[in-house]
Amino acid sequence: MAIKASQNNVLLRPHFKTHRSAKIAEWYREEGITACTVSSVRMAEYFAQAGWNDITIAFPFNRWELDKINELSKRIRLRLILSSLTAAEYLAQTATQKLHIFIEIDAGYPRSGIPASENSEIQACIDVISTNVNLKFDGFLSHFGNTYSSRNQEEITSLWHESLQKLLPLKRLFPGALISVGDTPSCSIIEDFSDVHEIRPGNFVFYDFMQTLIGSCLPEQVGVTVLCPVVAVYKERRQAIIYGGAVHFSKDSVEISGKRLFGWAGTTNDRLTPEYIPGCYVVSLSQEHGVVEFPQNVDMPEEGQILAIMPVHSCLTVSCLNKAYTPEGEEVEMLAVSF
Amino acid sequence: MAIKASQNNVLLRPHFKTHRSAKIAEWYREEGITACTVSSVRMAEYFAQAGWNDITIAFPFNRWELDKINELSKRIRLRLILSSLTAAEYLAQTATQKLHIFIEIDAGYPRSGIPASENSEIQACIDVISTNVNLKFDGFLSHFGNTYSSRNQEEITSLWHESLQKLLPLKRLFPGALISVGDTPSCSIIEDFSDVHEIRPGNFVFYDFMQTLIGSCLPEQVGVTVLCPVVAVYKERRQAIIYGGAVHFSKDSVEISGKRLFGWAGTTNDRLTPEYIPGCYVVSLSQEHGVVEFPQNVDMPEEGQILAIMPVHSCLTVSCLNKAYTPEGEEVEMLAVSF
Repeated sequence: MAIKASQNNVLLRPHFKTHRSAKIAEWYREEGITACTVSSVRMAEYFAQAGWNDITIAFPFNRWELDKINELSKRIRLRLILSSLTAAEYLAQTATQKLHIFIEIDAGYPRSGIPASENSEIQACIDVISTNVNLKFDGFLSHFGNTYSSRNQEEITSLWHESLQKLLPLKRLFPGALISVGDTPSCSIIEDFSDVHEIRPGNFVFYDFMQTLIGSCLPEQVGVTVLCPVVAVYKERRQAIIYGGAVHFSKDSVEISGKRLFGWAGTTNDRLTPEYIPGCYVVSLSQEHGVVEFPQNVDMPEEGQILAIMPVHSCLTVSCLNKAYTPEGEEVEMLAVSF
Repeated sequence: MAIKASQNNVLLRPHFKTHRSAKIAEWYREEGITACTVSSVRMAEYFAQAGWNDITIAFPFNRWELDKINELSKRIRLRLILSSLTAAEYLAQTATQKLHIFIEIDAGYPRSGIPASENSEIQACIDVISTNVNLKFDGFLSHFGNTYSSRNQEEITSLWHESLQKLLPLKRLFPGALISVGDTPSCSIIEDFSDVHEIRPGNFVFYDFMQTLIGSCLPEQVGVTVLCPVVAVYKERRQAIIYGGAVHFSKDSVEISGKRLFGWAGTTNDRLTPEYIPGCYVVSLSQEHGVVEFPQNVDMPEEGQILAIMPVHSCLTVSCLNKAYTPEGEEVEMLAVSF
């Protein structure tokens, strides 16, 4: 991703919410990355503490955290996103420290952000931001989140272009404004980023089962696995029960042939290198139990054996867990509670 | 629940995984409860520390935790569940401390447990348990987890009777064996527990949106709400964005009229007493964002307003959160990581 960003001459400001780890952040620094994205003030404080001094909080400004934001902005270059005119008005009246501002734009994924077509509301935001000398309007940020529901690379590509077409008129209307985009599916598939200034993919650090299915990555590129002991084996129904449930994985799912799945299961010899078994999936997750179903032609595991589970959505799964290990067995510390 | 258990002359051994709180456990003690159920060794250690000395770990024995189990069983009356003959054989060879044992029975909910009809396998388990003097066979435990998928009280009732009919022959075949059951839906609806010795409901301490829909409880009986600030309002699409996503709620959902929902939303004046709005639901959850949709006849909230969200599944939501407050504003400490 760093090479792609560099070739495109765009800033890679990776989203650190996927890993929440100062140690993993160091690996980015070794690749020349100096700016990052987070999704909470708490996470910004954590990475600021770890030496990151150029941080964007890519979640709509929450006025209940203004004191913490003012405090943090004394120490680092902090950028907030404003997702409505009301939020802009509130911050313009209350910001006492220097803050960089992106206006969040809804470019077809209707979650947060001002719709890209609402030029007058966007202009009003910029105007009100300019009334407070502490606030510096930097440009527009958008998250093309609908790419996550794509079924293949073609759909990702067409959603990227569709969303970009909604966003780009703002570049012409507001010259000098930076454009920040960057969901993981788009950033993995698209090669030409010449229309934007910054990309913010996060999930790509680990990828996951969902990303393999929509074509963002190959299974062998998935960089996280959850090691779960088998606690019971039921050969008749070809199922093994693992100690690994919704408290460990969260509960995102994918669908294959109409069946809801919660992970891809495999074996591991040394407990650290997974070998995923074709067709072997976590078919149900309750609070602590996972049910793994084995295809007919595959040996059932033994009780006590450690299975490797590729999570459906690594951001959520890693968010449930507090310890990770490198393939060399070194512990990777993470921020325990990220909100 | 304590009154119902007492009237039926059964032991109420509530599941503490729903709250994970030594403080809330004290409220049980005030009701005369002296025994509890947990779902992990870590949770057993936590409640043992808090003075609970009669604990069942209602998750299949995990051999990787044997050392911790042996250690803990020196200090309290600890009961494990064995969910297969293999597990029984392993524990019979390795237990060095006194342990009480329940054999887990699958009475129609095919997750973990030996199928109720497998008399010879059950007998073999009891036999192998008896070869280790540290192990004391106490009886049978079953979780009628399919009641959670019921649509109404009639379905819960009929599933209860169906499951019990599979379980009860074991009472006659193995005289003296205790029978432990007790999912929250059954325990909420059924009045006659004369066939069993022990019930283990957990979720009833809080209940949740799902339980109101299947008829376990009334909305006003739900004892937990998540307070989420509104960070953006989009009046045209009648949606408000809250700071409350899958990292806070986990991601269980319910369906109403074919629509997948992630919580029931309401207002709150003093931030602690929720007033849920009919038809006002969390319609989507991403990692930190929740999208709340307001019916046409209801005023949209203001940015900065605190909404109260009734979680779909309180056990999972509370497991994501680390702080709770009583209506009087007193903080309720919880075990941070319960596994």
